[in-house]
Amino acid sequence: MEPSRPTEKQNDPPEIVVLRWGHRPQRDVRLTTHVALTARALCASGFILSDVEDKNIAETIEKITAHWGGTFHFEMGIPWKKAVDDWKMKGGVIVHLTAYGENIQTSDVLSRIKSLNKDVLVLVGSQKVPGNFYSNDVSDFNVSIGNQPHSECAALAIFLDRFFAGEELAKDFGRAKMKIVPSARGKKIKSDIEIMRKSYGS
Amino acid sequence: MEPSRPTEKQNDPPEIVVLRWGHRPQRDVRLTTHVALTARALCASGFILSDVEDKNIAETIEKITAHWGGTFHFEMGIPWKKAVDDWKMKGGVIVHLTAYGENIQTSDVLSRIKSLNKDVLVLVGSQKVPGNFYSNDVSDFNVSIGNQPHSECAALAIFLDRFFAGEELAKDFGRAKMKIVPSARGKKIKSDIEIMRKSYGS
Repeated sequence: MEPSRPTEKQNDPPEIVVLRWGHRPQRDVRLTTHVALTARALCASGFILSDVEDKNIAETIEKITAHWGGTFHFEMGIPWKKAVDDWKMKGGVIVHLTAYGENIQTSDVLSRIKSLNKDVLVLVGSQKVPGNFYSNDVSDFNVSIGNQPHSECAALAIFLDRFFAGEELAKDFGRAKMKIVPSARGKKIKSDIEIMRKSYGS
Repeated sequence: MEPSRPTEKQNDPPEIVVLRWGHRPQRDVRLTTHVALTARALCASGFILSDVEDKNIAETIEKITAHWGGTFHFEMGIPWKKAVDDWKMKGGVIVHLTAYGENIQTSDVLSRIKSLNKDVLVLVGSQKVPGNFYSNDVSDFNVSIGNQPHSECAALAIFLDRFFAGEELAKDFGRAKMKIVPSARGKKIKSDIEIMRKSYGS
């Protein structure tokens, strides 16, 4: 029988976790940081840097979350196959983002994914990924964000924006020390004192 | 009087060109390459690497365009202020992407930009941008893709996806040597011979 979502989560909207595969600590540090920041800002619940550890990235992400709020989980060093198998065991869906996959614009792949109403692990490669990423040993869906080569960071952004139907960009991140006040001109920031005042209604 | 679009272009849909400001040749090479590839894949018409030259990026982008098709213009070394002033002189609009701007999801900023029906120059920073980028000396609009810090590559992707209403991901790039055939499983590519056969109906 196909496993279903845990009972206590069945009424919650599905969550997304991003798994970054193939990170090379020196070469990819800035790009992987951008991928992780994109995941966090666009309301993925967490990020797995698979197979390797990179403390610089962990520190950057933890600092950003401490400052700008939310509850974003960052893990690293987990073998990718274990993360995938654990996800499947818990009844989650695996989506592999690749330029070769079903086009998110011209196919109904996104609505097929969303209709499952399950948590999604999004696999985002860096180097060329192993061939079995494309097979159902690993991925339930191979999704392309257009069929031109571009950037895993851009592809992830559009996938999240469409999956969450834009609502992720309006979300208020809790426990923030700083918040930006969107403005037509200049830079407006609220510090934690003002945020706390508002929370406590004074 | 406000300049209007050139007569020969008034019936064409507005074009977008991306200007990358603050590129540091060693440090930013991969990120700027990803920003440029995102611009190309999501149907911006061109890319300006302002103030500096970086032949590695130029070569990568030209190689990708020669292979995967389309007519993407890449320029570098133009002072940013000259590019902005020239754009304004030609009647174009300047959009500065920044986490501090009007939120693309919670405001009507995108519909105000689109209602102008003008070509758009999108400014994408790398380092902290000069203060006047936020003022109307430079930008007509400051647009945020959410108000959390993330990635200029992700922000550009979502801006282009929303500006072109997703159609950019379905576009067929002309003059391609290779085309991906979107597939649920595996990697399918058509070479130029097959593309040519199809074009000539044999």
